[in-house]
Amino acid sequence: MELRVKEIAKMLKGTVVGDENIVINSLSKIEQGTKGSLSFLANSKYFHFLSTTKASAILVEQSMKEVSNLTNATLIQVEDAYLSFAKIINLFGQENKQNSGIHPSSFVDKDSSVGKDVYIGANVSIGKNCDIGDQVHIYPNCHIGDNVTIGKNTIIYAGTVINSSCQIGQDCFIQSGVVIGSDGFGFANDDNNNFLKIAQIGNVIIEDQVEIGANTTIDRATMGSTIIRQGVKLDNLIQIAHNVDIGRNTIIAAQSGVAGSTKIGENCMIGGQVGIIGHLVIGNNVKIAAQSGVGSNVKDDQIIQGSPAFSVSDYRKSYVSFKQLPQLFSLVHKIEKQINNLLNK
Amino acid sequence: MELRVKEIAKMLKGTVVGDENIVINSLSKIEQGTKGSLSFLANSKYFHFLSTTKASAILVEQSMKEVSNLTNATLIQVEDAYLSFAKIINLFGQENKQNSGIHPSSFVDKDSSVGKDVYIGANVSIGKNCDIGDQVHIYPNCHIGDNVTIGKNTIIYAGTVINSSCQIGQDCFIQSGVVIGSDGFGFANDDNNNFLKIAQIGNVIIEDQVEIGANTTIDRATMGSTIIRQGVKLDNLIQIAHNVDIGRNTIIAAQSGVAGSTKIGENCMIGGQVGIIGHLVIGNNVKIAAQSGVGSNVKDDQIIQGSPAFSVSDYRKSYVSFKQLPQLFSLVHKIEKQINNLLNK
Amino acid sequence: MELRVKEIAKMLKGTVVGDENIVINSLSKIEQGTKGSLSFLANSKYFHFLSTTKASAILVEQSMKEVSNLTNATLIQVEDAYLSFAKIINLFGQENKQNSGIHPSSFVDKDSSVGKDVYIGANVSIGKNCDIGDQVHIYPNCHIGDNVTIGKNTIIYAGTVINSSCQIGQDCFIQSGVVIGSDGFGFANDDNNNFLKIAQIGNVIIEDQVEIGANTTIDRATMGSTIIRQGVKLDNLIQIAHNVDIGRNTIIAAQSGVAGSTKIGENCMIGGQVGIIGHLVIGNNVKIAAQSGVGSNVKDDQIIQGSPAFSVSDYRKSYVSFKQLPQLFSLVHKIEKQINNLLNK
Repeated sequence: MELRVKEIAKMLKGTVVGDENIVINSLSKIEQGTKGSLSFLANSKYFHFLSTTKASAILVEQSMKEVSNLTNATLIQVEDAYLSFAKIINLFGQENKQNSGIHPSSFVDKDSSVGKDVYIGANVSIGKNCDIGDQVHIYPNCHIGDNVTIGKNTIIYAGTVINSSCQIGQDCFIQSGVVIGSDGFGFANDDNNNFLKIAQIGNVIIEDQVEIGANTTIDRATMGSTIIRQGVKLDNLIQIAHNVDIGRNTIIAAQSGVAGSTKIGENCMIGGQVGIIGHLVIGNNVKIAAQSGVGSNVKDDQIIQGSPAFSVSDYRKSYVSFKQLPQLFSLVHKIEKQINNLLNK
Repeated sequence: MELRVKEIAKMLKGTVVGDENIVINSLSKIEQGTKGSLSFLANSKYFHFLSTTKASAILVEQSMKEVSNLTNATLIQVEDAYLSFAKIINLFGQENKQNSGIHPSSFVDKDSSVGKDVYIGANVSIGKNCDIGDQVHIYPNCHIGDNVTIGKNTIIYAGTVINSSCQIGQDCFIQSGVVIGSDGFGFANDDNNNFLKIAQIGNVIIEDQVEIGANTTIDRATMGSTIIRQGVKLDNLIQIAHNVDIGRNTIIAAQSGVAGSTKIGENCMIGGQVGIIGHLVIGNNVKIAAQSGVGSNVKDDQIIQGSPAFSVSDYRKSYVSFKQLPQLFSLVHKIEKQINNLLNK
Repeated sequence: MELRVKEIAKMLKGTVVGDENIVINSLSKIEQGTKGSLSFLANSKYFHFLSTTKASAILVEQSMKEVSNLTNATLIQVEDAYLSFAKIINLFGQENKQNSGIHPSSFVDKDSSVGKDVYIGANVSIGKNCDIGDQVHIYPNCHIGDNVTIGKNTIIYAGTVINSSCQIGQDCFIQSGVVIGSDGFGFANDDNNNFLKIAQIGNVIIEDQVEIGANTTIDRATMGSTIIRQGVKLDNLIQIAHNVDIGRNTIIAAQSGVAGSTKIGENCMIGGQVGIIGHLVIGNNVKIAAQSGVGSNVKDDQIIQGSPAFSVSDYRKSYVSFKQLPQLFSLVHKIEKQINNLLNK
């Protein structure tokens, strides 16, 4: 892809300082800039790269007035340099999505319907009574079970499994190796005190604009639905158990796990390797620090850390104290001796 | 599926209070009941749903005498409402297992034997000298390596890999994306102080009635076998390293990991995100709290928590103290001043 | 495979004590030895197995002079018994790698090149413009995207996905269920304060002699490359985020995660279930204890533990104190009373 600086500036409603006819054919970090590349600068701590970068043009914040004196590169001044750069990356990224057609080695059941401009790669199998929306991309070696619906524009990368009766919204990105609709982990003690597997007859509902990271697993509900609501972003290797409900625009980092029937609110930010036990209610706008363990309900707007987790500011104070514990023990033992001396006088 | 209340009561040896001719065509949680649905009530904390539920019938404990006054729904009184409901779910769940036949796009090596009433889905590949038992279900896009045996009635969901020479028992459920028989993680320092990979020439043995969750990994032994014994239940995204041995009916929650050569006893309950280091012996009936790290042997019947883990009651006392550490530091510093004043008098 | 003791001794430059004509047809741990098996002994704590082992021959350290009096088995004395045994395992392990040829159900794009003596299993799909080196093994149900290169002798086990534009070195082992080149987890807040996905247009570079464990995920860079350098060994279920750079010969145990743009040095040893946040620099020869959380840069040669992690020796002292906290609280409260009594005198 080739674009002139003035075309990029126009798209982004930005102002050019320098040569507006330069041709941009690649994107780079500022420290890895090359001739023909566009970079961006959204944080003053990277100003020192301005004088040495080989990028031909740089997206900068309008408010960074001093920048033009620090570099020979052409500048495009915009209101939000990071968001603007994201839009340009996405423009370049679209070049990679030219796949189309249904590969002859794939298998779509005759009772399923497939929309317009759909791509289905090699060795894909799609079960009965599925409804695959327009512009859906299903990369090679995926399996879609019976009675699955997939909304338009959703992209499913190679090697992913969507088991029967699950519903996927539109404009979702489902990375490789994801499992949606595996059985929830439910057992009852039978008459001989062995575990009896409880059939999991519910499904998973993924709403629109959801991202699901590689090798993440989302179990089907025992009854009813496990629900991932609109705009949720799940990173890689996350475990979502049966009957969990995750609210709109909540974001969860890699390797976290949510146990059965827990309900998480909207706009939460959950760090990596967090564990949340089952049957809890987590409010809206909650932030949970990485590696925390959540063992009780959490109210709206709380920021928590620890295992079990509590207020992040209190956790940090306790952890500072934890590091000083050996000295505290020494001090207390010294005081103990002193007071014993005093008492024995 | 449609069943009359009296038919359900007969199966469960229960007693009907109300209209025994009502037709049940679905199952639901009590708070999500609909006309025609059967629900259950095993815990008095949900009694408040009795007056509002729309479920047509409810499975309740015989001992809950007061229930009949709290609802208009028909009741089926049984000894164990949860177990009884599990049995009915499993009855309804059987409807979903009607797959049969061998899909023309699957590939079974001519030197392998396949039992009666086996289902093999699209794009499955099965290597040489395998023995696939009667009624086995292998869903699409699975790979079974050479010399694998799979016992009767075992179900393997889509996208799972069972590598060469592994043995799977009967009546197992292996969810999607599971890897059984990947190489153990073993290296020796070679003459140039680089890591030399040690070939892993052992296998994995999964005994009968084992459940393995989605995207769980079980490495083959260096020599001998990694063993998952009868009735073990493993949740999603668990790591079982080479030469581990897990005792009968032990249950492990999601995202836990067990390092090489560790032996875990029978009837243990291990929480989510637990890590257990290698070469340990964990006794029978041990319980390990979520996110714990186990660094030494554990005797029978212990309940432990922490990283490294110790007695759960002691851990909880220490953790309560941890939360109060900043106040303790303040108190000690106050005392220190007071005693210095006394000493300096 | 059958080898006489004298042949094995010759390969390993070892000295035989006992019958050098014994035929070895299997390998075993010393406690599981059988007639015809070769075992090894590298640690004096296993000496007690010497008198009872049924192994026909044992590899021992030259320095263990006393061993010959403790067993009837033939001994092969070598400089490094563990490394020597690893070499013999690898010899036996080679028997299992006889696969060759391109399975008729696999699909290789006509614009891709495939080297000599390559094995491609059933249901493998390989995209456009790929370059598959000599002796590469790709087991069934793998997907290789467009523009991927794979160096000679690399083995990719069943069910793995390597997405477009990634580069894999030679002599690598990539276990089953691995995902290489999934999208990095990157979003910008758009004009409506929703998350806008940022296209990830970089790739992943895996250098030579790298091992990647089952179901591990390695995200592609936003721009540029996520890099796993020569000799790195990654265990199962590890998460490597976009733009991470892992230095030569670093080894990471199962279920650890490294967040975006973090750079890890050479020869590090990172335990299981460790989390490392983004944009950090971890030095060379760093050791990180299992379940630690790393929240700041780490200098060369440090050994750290905790969440957040600090010096391992300090962590252990603090943790010992943590276990004694309830007693410390009691002691301090006792002292508080005593001093109040003194002050009130």
